[in-house]
Amino acid sequence: MALAAEIDKHAKGDAKAGLEPLSRLVGDDLEAVNRLIVEHMHSPVALIPQLASHIVAAGGKRLRPMLTLASARLCGYQGDRHLGLAACVEFIHTATLLHDDVVDASDLRRGLATANAVWGNKPSVLVGDFLFSRSFQLMVADGSLDVLRILSNASAVIAEGEVLQLMTANDTSSDETSYMQVIEAKTAALFAAACRIGAVVAERPAAEEDALERFGSGFGIAFQLVDDVLDYSALQAELGKGVGDDFRDGKITLPVVLAIQRADSTERAFWQRCLEDQDQHDGDLEQAIEILQRHGALAEAMARARTYAASAREALESFPGSPAKTALLDVVDFCVDRAY
Amino acid sequence: MALAAEIDKHAKGDAKAGLEPLSRLVGDDLEAVNRLIVEHMHSPVALIPQLASHIVAAGGKRLRPMLTLASARLCGYQGDRHLGLAACVEFIHTATLLHDDVVDASDLRRGLATANAVWGNKPSVLVGDFLFSRSFQLMVADGSLDVLRILSNASAVIAEGEVLQLMTANDTSSDETSYMQVIEAKTAALFAAACRIGAVVAERPAAEEDALERFGSGFGIAFQLVDDVLDYSALQAELGKGVGDDFRDGKITLPVVLAIQRADSTERAFWQRCLEDQDQHDGDLEQAIEILQRHGALAEAMARARTYAASAREALESFPGSPAKTALLDVVDFCVDRAY
Repeated sequence: MALAAEIDKHAKGDAKAGLEPLSRLVGDDLEAVNRLIVEHMHSPVALIPQLASHIVAAGGKRLRPMLTLASARLCGYQGDRHLGLAACVEFIHTATLLHDDVVDASDLRRGLATANAVWGNKPSVLVGDFLFSRSFQLMVADGSLDVLRILSNASAVIAEGEVLQLMTANDTSSDETSYMQVIEAKTAALFAAACRIGAVVAERPAAEEDALERFGSGFGIAFQLVDDVLDYSALQAELGKGVGDDFRDGKITLPVVLAIQRADSTERAFWQRCLEDQDQHDGDLEQAIEILQRHGALAEAMARARTYAASAREALESFPGSPAKTALLDVVDFCVDRAY
Repeated sequence: MALAAEIDKHAKGDAKAGLEPLSRLVGDDLEAVNRLIVEHMHSPVALIPQLASHIVAAGGKRLRPMLTLASARLCGYQGDRHLGLAACVEFIHTATLLHDDVVDASDLRRGLATANAVWGNKPSVLVGDFLFSRSFQLMVADGSLDVLRILSNASAVIAEGEVLQLMTANDTSSDETSYMQVIEAKTAALFAAACRIGAVVAERPAAEEDALERFGSGFGIAFQLVDDVLDYSALQAELGKGVGDDFRDGKITLPVVLAIQRADSTERAFWQRCLEDQDQHDGDLEQAIEILQRHGALAEAMARARTYAASAREALESFPGSPAKTALLDVVDFCVDRAY
């Protein structure tokens, strides 16, 4: 219980003003979800809840489970199946974060030491597997094959996206198409699934499931585009995430793809040295930011994010006005505006 | 197709004489399973089938999916659902192997370079996640919540066992109870689940499901006990697995637990230096084997394996005689006898 309260406090603290309407809408439900999360990460093997609670607490603002809760609410759902399924979504996300941090050899996440930095890579890999399995156990307990299909598909797509990201890392010839494939898979697929299952539990027609999936997908793409811009933003420090993580890892995100398209031979050599050869020195990140700004690459990536945000908003048009609809539209705006 | 044939050849080549009755019984089915495995590890992300086919081909003798096939046959099943579910079982096993090799930093598996040795740890972690997700997609396509429950439970238990093994590694005060918990979870749970789902697809009464689960569990424990003895056996080289892997990793297996119970102070210091401090030199493995033999620790672990093998055989008593029953009993005998 103490842990649930602590997680809840942390999640709320992170939510900030822009997430407030959504947090307010699903507040009680989210507290119930946090309790389910703590309850279901229990295991007689002590290291599992220790490590899992570290990452669950550090994991952030519970955006994905809130999407499930708000989508169910938007569809007029009155039961409590959405609580367990929101916990499933968070477990899948958490398992992905644990494995991501191992793959990226990250030391910090949201200003806290990563699980791999504290306990090493080995338990992070295995506890990720546990949380992933636990998520499927929870789905089985819920009993909907439709939900199992949606979330197992999303999980496979996420893994594909992560592998594709690995294959395109450090490759400055990697293009916009690859980048979009990566973010649709690694980020948007779970946003889309989280929203869609809200309509599934409410037993709404397929058209509403599809609309919520489109909403989640557009939102997820916009969210990741902004995240990738913020990695080159001076405001990034506010996120508690290391500045320039993507640059350090040689990830080829949209701002970099655009800047390379517009690069002269000197700049091309700069990107190759920093991202392909991983030969980075003091001042390189600052120079990268200067080049990105000069070519308008950050602004263009933000414009792209706004386009996807607009398509997400459009997907909700057929739903009548409601506090849930307002909160979902507001959270999209917040996520796109948070750069400024 | 070429790959399916190659995998099939490899699997058959590994089966050796003792697995022959089982391989003969399920031969056509196993070929179909191998085709399903190849088909379902496909992904537009090229590295996934590349890496997956490497580990699937190197993965060995297909013992676990053969258990599903033979259990279904034992229960008189006439359909083809057991094929897809046998592929699920192999995918879960393969995902576990990929993550195991990362955790153990292994270079060799069955005489071939491990995926992590060829491609690095990162894609091994992520492709393991993909295969795991794919396994759940296949279960959803099958459509049985009972099967989903059995295999998601097994997956969570496997992960718990792997974490517990990590916690007890390098700890010479770790006891027999912990060891049994580890092998029941990391090995026997999937053997038990693989057998149980054979009865589930055949829609047999719960008593038969339970009996097959007991068979798989006893067999799995016996199998792992023998595996752990073989790690200190001169015959180990025949398995194509590095000799002394467990010793090198500081794993506290039953032979070591028994030898430490019987150790004088010099021997205790030896085990602490080698397994806790991981301070190992030329000749230490040979000395470990000599100590284990002198205390009868290997023989006692083998005797324990025979007890579990007997309980596995007993679990099948209520089934009438059939070629499937004979093959299942024979494979237990083979796995226990393979040490000699």
